[in-house]
Amino acid sequence: MALFGSVRQRLYHALEQYDRTDPVSVVISSLVVGVIAINLIAIILESIPAYAAAYGPTFFLIELVSCIFFLIEYLLRVWVCVESPGPVNAATQAQGQPSNLGKRLRHMLKPMSIIDLVAFLPSILQVLMPGLDLRFLRILRLFRVFKLIRYFASLDILLNVLYDERKNLTGTFLIMLIVLTLAASALYVVERDVQPEAFGSIPQAMWWAMAALTTVGYGDAIPMTTLGKILGSVVTILGIGMVALPSGILAASFSDQLRSSRRSLEASVTEALEDGILTQDETERLRRMGNDLGLRPETLNELIENTAQLKARQSHSTVVLDMDGQTTQISGNGNE
Amino acid sequence: MALFGSVRQRLYHALEQYDRTDPVSVVISSLVVGVIAINLIAIILESIPAYAAAYGPTFFLIELVSCIFFLIEYLLRVWVCVESPGPVNAATQAQGQPSNLGKRLRHMLKPMSIIDLVAFLPSILQVLMPGLDLRFLRILRLFRVFKLIRYFASLDILLNVLYDERKNLTGTFLIMLIVLTLAASALYVVERDVQPEAFGSIPQAMWWAMAALTTVGYGDAIPMTTLGKILGSVVTILGIGMVALPSGILAASFSDQLRSSRRSLEASVTEALEDGILTQDETERLRRMGNDLGLRPETLNELIENTAQLKARQSHSTVVLDMDGQTTQISGNGNE
Amino acid sequence: MALFGSVRQRLYHALEQYDRTDPVSVVISSLVVGVIAINLIAIILESIPAYAAAYGPTFFLIELVSCIFFLIEYLLRVWVCVESPGPVNAATQAQGQPSNLGKRLRHMLKPMSIIDLVAFLPSILQVLMPGLDLRFLRILRLFRVFKLIRYFASLDILLNVLYDERKNLTGTFLIMLIVLTLAASALYVVERDVQPEAFGSIPQAMWWAMAALTTVGYGDAIPMTTLGKILGSVVTILGIGMVALPSGILAASFSDQLRSSRRSLEASVTEALEDGILTQDETERLRRMGNDLGLRPETLNELIENTAQLKARQSHSTVVLDMDGQTTQISGNGNE
Amino acid sequence: MALFGSVRQRLYHALEQYDRTDPVSVVISSLVVGVIAINLIAIILESIPAYAAAYGPTFFLIELVSCIFFLIEYLLRVWVCVESPGPVNAATQAQGQPSNLGKRLRHMLKPMSIIDLVAFLPSILQVLMPGLDLRFLRILRLFRVFKLIRYFASLDILLNVLYDERKNLTGTFLIMLIVLTLAASALYVVERDVQPEAFGSIPQAMWWAMAALTTVGYGDAIPMTTLGKILGSVVTILGIGMVALPSGILAASFSDQLRSSRRSLEASVTEALEDGILTQDETERLRRMGNDLGLRPETLNELIENTAQLKARQSHSTVVLDMDGQTTQISGNGNE
Repeated sequence: MALFGSVRQRLYHALEQYDRTDPVSVVISSLVVGVIAINLIAIILESIPAYAAAYGPTFFLIELVSCIFFLIEYLLRVWVCVESPGPVNAATQAQGQPSNLGKRLRHMLKPMSIIDLVAFLPSILQVLMPGLDLRFLRILRLFRVFKLIRYFASLDILLNVLYDERKNLTGTFLIMLIVLTLAASALYVVERDVQPEAFGSIPQAMWWAMAALTTVGYGDAIPMTTLGKILGSVVTILGIGMVALPSGILAASFSDQLRSSRRSLEASVTEALEDGILTQDETERLRRMGNDLGLRPETLNELIENTAQLKARQSHSTVVLDMDGQTTQISGNGNE
Repeated sequence: MALFGSVRQRLYHALEQYDRTDPVSVVISSLVVGVIAINLIAIILESIPAYAAAYGPTFFLIELVSCIFFLIEYLLRVWVCVESPGPVNAATQAQGQPSNLGKRLRHMLKPMSIIDLVAFLPSILQVLMPGLDLRFLRILRLFRVFKLIRYFASLDILLNVLYDERKNLTGTFLIMLIVLTLAASALYVVERDVQPEAFGSIPQAMWWAMAALTTVGYGDAIPMTTLGKILGSVVTILGIGMVALPSGILAASFSDQLRSSRRSLEASVTEALEDGILTQDETERLRRMGNDLGLRPETLNELIENTAQLKARQSHSTVVLDMDGQTTQISGNGNE
Repeated sequence: MALFGSVRQRLYHALEQYDRTDPVSVVISSLVVGVIAINLIAIILESIPAYAAAYGPTFFLIELVSCIFFLIEYLLRVWVCVESPGPVNAATQAQGQPSNLGKRLRHMLKPMSIIDLVAFLPSILQVLMPGLDLRFLRILRLFRVFKLIRYFASLDILLNVLYDERKNLTGTFLIMLIVLTLAASALYVVERDVQPEAFGSIPQAMWWAMAALTTVGYGDAIPMTTLGKILGSVVTILGIGMVALPSGILAASFSDQLRSSRRSLEASVTEALEDGILTQDETERLRRMGNDLGLRPETLNELIENTAQLKARQSHSTVVLDMDGQTTQISGNGNE
Repeated sequence: MALFGSVRQRLYHALEQYDRTDPVSVVISSLVVGVIAINLIAIILESIPAYAAAYGPTFFLIELVSCIFFLIEYLLRVWVCVESPGPVNAATQAQGQPSNLGKRLRHMLKPMSIIDLVAFLPSILQVLMPGLDLRFLRILRLFRVFKLIRYFASLDILLNVLYDERKNLTGTFLIMLIVLTLAASALYVVERDVQPEAFGSIPQAMWWAMAALTTVGYGDAIPMTTLGKILGSVVTILGIGMVALPSGILAASFSDQLRSSRRSLEASVTEALEDGILTQDETERLRRMGNDLGLRPETLNELIENTAQLKARQSHSTVVLDMDGQTTQISGNGNE
């Protein structure tokens, strides 16, 4: 039982907490990502009629192996999820830790678990109930692409920024909808008699308006009257704004994220230098933080040196930096 | 009379001051947004000839009910507007509060009131004066889409940013106009003999120049001579600048807005912690502020904790945080 | 002579220093902008063969009057330029003020003066020397559009930003050139045998590469082979970077400009409040500064109030604000 | 030997350390850039069949001379590289300076050296081994464009920003890939029966999805069914996000770079003013720093004056600025 628990714990860490220094974790992650990638490529290639005819059995084999793999992965994740420490807050502390069953149910309702389930369930259903629409189920399999999200830490920042700016982005979307409706109606009025096949109704004109506002410009619907071209130009120029608005919103939010993470790094540097000595350990910790923020090593070094100089000058003392096996002393009275 | 006034006041709050916690307000807002949405969809679908023939009476009914609804809404808004506290400044204080009639006239001249009026007036005019051009009036009805602005608070930020940057955006527009004119003239000179149907005059060439500068590129007018293609490439590359300039301007402005609202939140956190205790009420207030700014709860919690730590360390005292029914003590001498 | 000098000085201010409160300045500016606008529209319309045939004499008259107008404007500007205070620095102080002739020569070599000269000179040359190529000279007239630059103050910020970022923008352009060359060569190798008419040489393939990289996509040259489509997709995705890079560069620069102008406004507010009183005059001056920066009045008021509160709290004194004929007292001990 | 060494050192500085004030360095740089430019233009023109036939010998001569030139340049760089001071860190100090051979080997493995080698090696191989595929080798010659990177200092900032944001940009690319796959599959399901030639398989539909997501919109594949157009519109609107995300990421990073370089300039100004005097030398040094950052002189002057005023006011002393041969005194008690 102790062994059993220790295996479960070991697997929990390997499956759920990606750790670059743990070989088991790296191997499992690479394996899962590899199976997903091969599977997706197979699904895409299978859609080519010639390939489907020639390599049908191979595609079926890949699908079968992948499904079994995803099923095992899903079951393992449900099994090990009880090792999760769970959220620590007043509510849970008051009512005690939930039971293993409760933990498992909560795990199974997480978005990522549902994605994991959807990854193999339709294919199994298809085998059990051959009467289902095969075509649609096949496409459902492409949702497996979402399983990749778990393995790309950098997506977190992007998703956070999109979440933070949801209100502004919704507002932009609403503005776009308003402009789209009005642009389509205007062109509908102007062009419907000349080109009834492209501007014969507002929904038809919306296809043009969408292509103009997003600056895609397919060229299948183009205003032909002079007034239509003038209105079309105005709409297209407004379209630039439709690209510029979300760019601006996201830029501001990214800037804010960068600034706050930069500030927390600076605070850590200041704290590490508070005792006048930057030990090897502290250097290592700061380096890891800087790396997580995507900082180049020379930028971090510069930040440390500047902070040390400031500290030395303000406290009229000497700061000792122990970096990369080399010790530097920065004196507060030196002429730099 | 007291009841009458209290109904008016009640309705004023429900109609003009959206409050998520007031069920009457939520119901009325949802109803108005719903009627507008159904009405807009009906207008768009009515423009499809087949639908107009098949469901004519239904569209007429929707229009009729909506118009009556918008009329009642307009009258109610005019009635309750006297409950508005009105701007408080030296001028109004000197001359006393305006009369109810004055308040109502001022209300009716507000942009949103005019939009409300335009939403139903043309349709009523059409019934009264059957000789008017029906087609044009029908399109006017689409301006009802602007009524939605009132119900999307997030549009305020976008409109503020656009207003703040009006000078820079106008400047960008002027640059675009200059580049457009010169590009069209250049291509007109180069291509007019080869493609008189697309570049036969400067206004014609402007249609191409607009599509190139905005990177839409419909493909109906394309330079064919070598010199024309070289010039066209230069214009298109300048077109990237035409997209980049407003993006940059808006990004800067959004960044500025975000920074100032963030700073005012930080000031509120600092103020709330001034007495060394963050009460449940203060936490609630900060949480609402953070929510209005679109902040994730964890970001706010981090901000509060960092500020508390700084406060504790600077004043060598203990800060007490009372958050989510859980009390935390942060000591200024602890090693974090 | 005194009258003569005073007229010149009056005219100098009206012509060269736009002042919204001076009616002469406003009338002259509006007149110049109006003549330029009418003239440009006439040139553009004249390029339409039908219009040129029908309204030839009218266009000639507009051209004649405009040219005489621009000539007089040019001569007046040369005449009044001696009123310019000129740059004040050590060099000019040492050698004394330059003579009037020197000042006029320097004025005539300024970019804006050359634009003014080019605006009417070709048309006059054309009358004097009828043997010149009429067509080309006609197009030269469109450079009059640059005369508008003088009247749009907001262009200054845009031009400054573009100038500040000239190095980064040049770098972006170089990257684009490298990607363009390599993309064109790759597609030339892959597609030349299949579509010799569109990818038969590298310069031909560059036309496609340019349309793909700038996301214009005319659709006249499209890769057809599978390898060509894959390479084309990669190039197009790199094209997004070509739009994103200058957007990012300009956004950063606009942000920096906004921040520094905001900071100088904050410094002015702090300075105005240093004596604990914000007089009517100081309010007026701050309001004008804020307006120049495109700030909404409520944003400025908020900034003033926040600064006053901070000042009051820090110095434990009372700050008096005299704004819009209303006097507010902010006490440092009040509970806000 | 001393002369030999001094020639090598002289050449090292001229070749590897571009210095605007050293005429030898400027001449050599211009010569190399010139040869690369002529060579690239020749390669591009040679791809036009008519030109290749008419000017074959000329293109051969240009190629021959360039290759010999690049060979000599390469050999010279290998020869002089031993003058490089090399990285100074604890590791190299411990084991002493490497030998000349070691230095040369390390130099030859640098990316820029490999680019230099690839620039002429294929052409020489082609002469030695006439059996190789000529066509492919000819295209390889275009990689010479990378030799230009050495001469454009401004590319450093761009490459640093791209490197700093590699994680976020990879994340964006992953999101794009997911959206691309799902969009292509959706349109494949909807349109495959109507347009099997454009949407007959997922890879085919991907070509459309790529053009829609990047807002290129060639117009060769366009959804035709109503459902296809609705889905296509959603994909296209998501495409705006695909442009906005990298713009936002790069904007944030450029902003951060600009801010940190601005801050280090401000620190230098503060330091230079610490003794209350800004000497001619210090002014010169600050001016050079400002120029490297792309600052306009007036912006720098303003920064210096503001800092001087602040310093004067805080220390109640007088600050002396010695700029451009002119001495200014700023007193801390002035009422400015």
